[in-house]
Amino acid sequence: MIATISNIDTNIAFAELDQRISKIWEEILDSSELIQTIINGKFNKYLYAIYMLETYHYTSHNAANQALVGIKNYQNSIYTKFCFRHAYDETGHEKMALHDLLSIGLDESKFLIPEPLPETETLIAYLYWISFNGNPLRRLGYSYWAESSYEYINPLVDKIKNTLNLNANQMTFFIAHSDIDENHAEEVKSIILRTCINPDDWKNMATTAETSLRLTGCLLDGVYREYQLFIKGESERYGFLNESFCVS
Amino acid sequence: MIATISNIDTNIAFAELDQRISKIWEEILDSSELIQTIINGKFNKYLYAIYMLETYHYTSHNAANQALVGIKNYQNSIYTKFCFRHAYDETGHEKMALHDLLSIGLDESKFLIPEPLPETETLIAYLYWISFNGNPLRRLGYSYWAESSYEYINPLVDKIKNTLNLNANQMTFFIAHSDIDENHAEEVKSIILRTCINPDDWKNMATTAETSLRLTGCLLDGVYREYQLFIKGESERYGFLNESFCVS
Amino acid sequence: MIATISNIDTNIAFAELDQRISKIWEEILDSSELIQTIINGKFNKYLYAIYMLETYHYTSHNAANQALVGIKNYQNSIYTKFCFRHAYDETGHEKMALHDLLSIGLDESKFLIPEPLPETETLIAYLYWISFNGNPLRRLGYSYWAESSYEYINPLVDKIKNTLNLNANQMTFFIAHSDIDENHAEEVKSIILRTCINPDDWKNMATTAETSLRLTGCLLDGVYREYQLFIKGESERYGFLNESFCVS
Amino acid sequence: MIATISNIDTNIAFAELDQRISKIWEEILDSSELIQTIINGKFNKYLYAIYMLETYHYTSHNAANQALVGIKNYQNSIYTKFCFRHAYDETGHEKMALHDLLSIGLDESKFLIPEPLPETETLIAYLYWISFNGNPLRRLGYSYWAESSYEYINPLVDKIKNTLNLNANQMTFFIAHSDIDENHAEEVKSIILRTCINPDDWKNMATTAETSLRLTGCLLDGVYREYQLFIKGESERYGFLNESFCVS
Repeated sequence: MIATISNIDTNIAFAELDQRISKIWEEILDSSELIQTIINGKFNKYLYAIYMLETYHYTSHNAANQALVGIKNYQNSIYTKFCFRHAYDETGHEKMALHDLLSIGLDESKFLIPEPLPETETLIAYLYWISFNGNPLRRLGYSYWAESSYEYINPLVDKIKNTLNLNANQMTFFIAHSDIDENHAEEVKSIILRTCINPDDWKNMATTAETSLRLTGCLLDGVYREYQLFIKGESERYGFLNESFCVS
Repeated sequence: MIATISNIDTNIAFAELDQRISKIWEEILDSSELIQTIINGKFNKYLYAIYMLETYHYTSHNAANQALVGIKNYQNSIYTKFCFRHAYDETGHEKMALHDLLSIGLDESKFLIPEPLPETETLIAYLYWISFNGNPLRRLGYSYWAESSYEYINPLVDKIKNTLNLNANQMTFFIAHSDIDENHAEEVKSIILRTCINPDDWKNMATTAETSLRLTGCLLDGVYREYQLFIKGESERYGFLNESFCVS
Repeated sequence: MIATISNIDTNIAFAELDQRISKIWEEILDSSELIQTIINGKFNKYLYAIYMLETYHYTSHNAANQALVGIKNYQNSIYTKFCFRHAYDETGHEKMALHDLLSIGLDESKFLIPEPLPETETLIAYLYWISFNGNPLRRLGYSYWAESSYEYINPLVDKIKNTLNLNANQMTFFIAHSDIDENHAEEVKSIILRTCINPDDWKNMATTAETSLRLTGCLLDGVYREYQLFIKGESERYGFLNESFCVS
Repeated sequence: MIATISNIDTNIAFAELDQRISKIWEEILDSSELIQTIINGKFNKYLYAIYMLETYHYTSHNAANQALVGIKNYQNSIYTKFCFRHAYDETGHEKMALHDLLSIGLDESKFLIPEPLPETETLIAYLYWISFNGNPLRRLGYSYWAESSYEYINPLVDKIKNTLNLNANQMTFFIAHSDIDENHAEEVKSIILRTCINPDDWKNMATTAETSLRLTGCLLDGVYREYQLFIKGESERYGFLNESFCVS
């Protein structure tokens, strides 16, 4: 069955969007040194900690910027209700990232979470901006790739699990979260079908999908650069990791 | 059973708050010419229309300012989730006010909703302000009286129903809404117990309850003043009502 | 010479606006118990302190909400430049209110400025709201009456000066400020002529003038009510005044 | 003479900041294909138009985000006044970018300025974010490099001038602007000396300098990528340039 909204063949539109997203994921998977380190089995708890704390940062804003879209977009009740419902669902998810680090021995009493890296802050800034300015449907582009990223991420999560010898309870951010997000992915697709009713909506939404995914790729590069500083003993932000893991 | 949080006897605290709210309601009920008109049975569809369109205005912002509290207060997940959940529930409620007017013959094709009266805009401004500034628990004061106002409002609603000869389907804003809000009133009381844990929280919340109720009283006065202009043929905003009711 | 902009006779428009403002001033001057106290010569330093600290509060937001208009209105450079220039000029003026109180013996080391009264916060909330929402020319209505209020205020200032036996250096907020604002009044009139080019602009601007002046009248009433509590020993906010004036 | 504020040797601090900025400029100058095109004399009016319209976009937000810092930072009058003054000065500067394009034959009646490129929007988003969140002194880092960038830019401006055969009146954005900014550079240095009084202020400010300069480098890359699309006839945004230059 082919749904047709305002002359957009949405099956084709989704296929094109998937292809654009897929292309950027490939670029990231190919060029990211962080991801190469995971694949090569050279990943360690320090790099994991840096990655997860930066993830903590941007995740802690996701509910807020999602709700902001609802505030901005108060004319269309269906989309507004979607925004507030998802903001509700996303609230507190960053705590899973922190939980997972504590579960591998990071001692909460020994550090304050450092300021986000510039790349993390840039992603956060962009997500608030597109949530409050321009076409309010834009943020659906971020949700669209983020809620269905498990196809790309799961092999990496498995590899991390094996390399660091973790169990599923220690990876709640990725594993429990992915179960929650399975529903979300369907809901996002469904709300896109109901709201993105003209070509301009799709173009805006797709551009935001691409840009937010690229900025997430930049975040991975930022994490890896900081890790290089860390192993040289030059990371101002993450030097504390040397003294904050419990001896096991 | 007496719950005790941080040395606040919450039973006493709620009783005092109820008393302060009750006192302001009495002042409003006594002094408001709008309410006297309802009680005297001289209420008519024009005054009802002015009141309901102003109600439409501030109600259309309630979900947004409720969500704003969640954005501002992202540290406390329990309260943030409450805010986003209630924002979800409140979304679109203003449409009930509009529905009720259309059901008594107002012809949607014959007017644009006029700009809010100064008193209405002042209430809206205040609710956004307290939602984004100062103690984020303040907005609970507004929810507290608003969700449990049916004790004061229901006799007036009955009187309007009889005077204008309406059935329940024509008063969804007050009647369906009051069923929805019954749960809310309990939820608001429960979240206050969980979050207002020091005397300053209570003081802030109670002041906001009082102020937002007084500003709602001012709104009633503004509506009545505009109605006086209307019957003299001098209302710029609501003159359209003369030509916008279907002849029945 | 009669300037004519888009069929508005601006001389007539200003005269009408002046008349509406004048009418509200008269209502305030007639009904305000605070102002009666000044006229009767029963004004004292405690009432003055409450009034000036509430004035401190809203004045401390004037530069910010003025700048907000410039941010919101970035399309029209002339008006935007006016906004940023006036925001620059208004920055820090609240310190004059504080200075004047210290000059009559209030001891800065003995108190923290209390939270604003509900009426003060309502005025602040309204000014931010109209600065960021709706027609950005609206805030000119506030500037228009505020910058030219000295005609109404000066006799009261003289009376306060005599009653409290102050010299001009102790009344910088009113006296130095009024010299600064004389230019502003002209600039405001001139920018209104350049920007308020259609009847809707004038209507919006005039409504905001009236509403912000009325809310300022409410602030005076709030100050007087708090003073009544103070003399009964029941003011939570201002009880500190009993112990914070130096013995002279 | 060496100024010393809170144990920061500011001469050393500025020298280190200059070095960090200089390093990023070198990276940009070396790697940017846009800049290579200028140096190689292969620059043309189409690439210039794309660059200037993207510049138009972010420049049109500079006054607003500068004023936002003043609103956020209302405690410190000196810095707040600096912010509002500079916002005043920056208002409307984007029009110089547009003027310069019209002066080389772009016909204003033939196009609407397209939406900003993702890289441009990311820079805009970042500048608003750092203006409203975190240490309000951060935005000085952006001003610091931007107001003193002429050392790096002037040789490129000369090259563009020769390549496109322009006179100074056709390059107001770069030439008139650089005269205005000469004072600004001094003022920025001076306000940094007065406000950045602890190491954390400097760190925050310097990080923002680096990040905003890197994001500007990304903007150059985005412009060049779009130009490549343009010459292949695939630029959705800038296809209009083919029909919008007057034949000369």
